[in-house]
Amino acid sequence: MRYTADEEANLALVRGLFDEVLNPMDSSAVDRFIAPDYIQHNPSVETGRAPFKAFLDHIRSVHPQGIHDVKRMFADGDHVIVHYHVRRWPDDSGWAVVDIFRIENGLIVEHWDVAQDVKLGGPNANGMF
Amino acid sequence: MRYTADEEANLALVRGLFDEVLNPMDSSAVDRFIAPDYIQHNPSVETGRAPFKAFLDHIRSVHPQGIHDVKRMFADGDHVIVHYHVRRWPDDSGWAVVDIFRIENGLIVEHWDVAQDVKLGGPNANGMF
Repeated sequence: MRYTADEEANLALVRGLFDEVLNPMDSSAVDRFIAPDYIQHNPSVETGRAPFKAFLDHIRSVHPQGIHDVKRMFADGDHVIVHYHVRRWPDDSGWAVVDIFRIENGLIVEHWDVAQDVKLGGPNANGMF
Repeated sequence: MRYTADEEANLALVRGLFDEVLNPMDSSAVDRFIAPDYIQHNPSVETGRAPFKAFLDHIRSVHPQGIHDVKRMFADGDHVIVHYHVRRWPDDSGWAVVDIFRIENGLIVEHWDVAQDVKLGGPNANGMF
């Protein structure tokens, strides 16, 4: 690929976030991926790393079978973009989500996301992914 | 920047889509940006270029003051990702949207998107953008 070494490292960091933090919903692994002063743009979560850990513990308690099924991932400079399917339980139609992460010095320092209920049975047969 | 020439061209194509098609809501300009067999993943629109033109004419008729306010744009190989704020009228809180476009031979051939109502007054002061 034509990724720079920094972009490859950023992609690996975000893959690690999904594999070691989000899918196991393991707040104890957060510090290896996210900076202390993490800037949160998700409008339902307080800014900072500690509130993100609390959020993760909360979703683990209410949706212990939840998964984050990554469909595609992109890198551009210090940003990584992930398009994925959240399912809260095995047969949940779930949400389509895009996360945008900004990385500095090997840690995620800023996060934006957009989430939408997956709509089934619309006028095209292509699916949302 | 470290974009390839193809990535630069893809970014310019998508900027053109926003400037010449989406913001003026001009369906007559669509053919310069979108391939005839355009694969649509938005679950509310039929697949193909012609239904996209009809959709554009529809939103222009119901929201003639609508704008697509681009906040950030990324390129990775044959994909371009755009994070933007749709406002249907001047003081609309609007939607946060991410579009993902795939480009082949200088035209957009595939499109995914995720949209969410902008939430005001949440627990952080960072805003959704």
